Amino acid sequence: MRASKNTLRKFPLRRAFTFMEEGPVVLLSTFYQGRNNIMTASCTMSMDFSPMVGVMLGPWDCSYRALLQTKECVLAIPGADLLEKTVAIGNCSGAEVDKFAEFKLTPCPAAKVKAPLIGECLKNLECKLIKKSNINGGELFVLQGVAAWHNPARREQRAFHAKGDGTFFIDGRHVNLHQKMTRWQDCI
Amino acid sequence: MRASKNTLRKFPLRRAFTFMEEGPVVLLSTFYQGRNNIMTASCTMSMDFSPMVGVMLGPWDCSYRALLQTKECVLAIPGADLLEKTVAIGNCSGAEVDKFAEFKLTPCPAAKVKAPLIGECLKNLECKLIKKSNINGGELFVLQGVAAWHNPARREQRAFHAKGDGTFFIDGRHVNLHQKMTRWQDCI
Repeated sequence: MRASKNTLRKFPLRRAFTFMEEGPVVLLSTFYQGRNNIMTASCTMSMDFSPMVGVMLGPWDCSYRALLQTKECVLAIPGADLLEKTVAIGNCSGAEVDKFAEFKLTPCPAAKVKAPLIGECLKNLECKLIKKSNINGGELFVLQGVAAWHNPARREQRAFHAKGDGTFFIDGRHVNLHQKMTRWQDCI
Repeated sequence: MRASKNTLRKFPLRRAFTFMEEGPVVLLSTFYQGRNNIMTASCTMSMDFSPMVGVMLGPWDCSYRALLQTKECVLAIPGADLLEKTVAIGNCSGAEVDKFAEFKLTPCPAAKVKAPLIGECLKNLECKLIKKSNINGGELFVLQGVAAWHNPARREQRAFHAKGDGTFFIDGRHVNLHQKMTRWQDCI
């Protein structure tokens, strides 16, 4: 079902480091040669609080070329209601399928990049490519977050995590240990 | 309470890629200048299935120097029963505290590195440092897993994830979508 309206809201960029450190599965969107595309990615990391994020991609990924050429993408975090769709997105190639149409996802205009936000996702982080590093044959793309969005209207707010073997964990209990983080108070 | 016996069991290295991709908080152990140490880390990523793992460290971390000099460490995944202890480990420095003693954790002998396994953790991955890469001021340590252990006797088998702001998600529902992973069947 296509979202009837855009429910994405701006989120403070200085707090957007909270998007990626927990290691959620993400959808990476690009805009290249006149076409939007999406890939599923779970080999990612939070690299600093600015926020900076690392993503491993391979030349076999259609989005690899798009990201390399345009130096822009969006990292969108799907909720648990999109788990099966997210797996299906990872099973096909943007070379053959218009994934926004096929999976009934809504491309929404971003503020600082041409790659689209994904209207149904919980979080969207607009990113610029700042470095690419060959790591023993794979390619690590280092991304600088430049604008952030959340989607408080979504009923399902839980992200999910890939074990890498076709099984997933959905976020369970949320534990607040703010007061015990004595060393990193500036992050709280 | 110190574990009365070592309940760690060998785990097939070819399946150890399943340890890190979900983005759990880890304890990183080192052995340097005659001393064991532990740090808490959550800026990590699975880089390939061999398994290869990336970890961001800074020169302010006591373990930075240990890892750089010895080129070895263990990544140990604590269960949710160790969540508060894991936060406390991240709040003090190995320069001042013997963390194994302070936090009543059991160092167990590893097979291929001198850094100790952590007897109370769910998973332990012995690692060799294969590359260090400066990423816009931070340091990415690229680690090759060389031996793996699990701990099926632990009652609590759920890992946990840091949002980066002092709050955490414990693993919730486990969803098996093996059959829908049509593109990556060799990982299942």
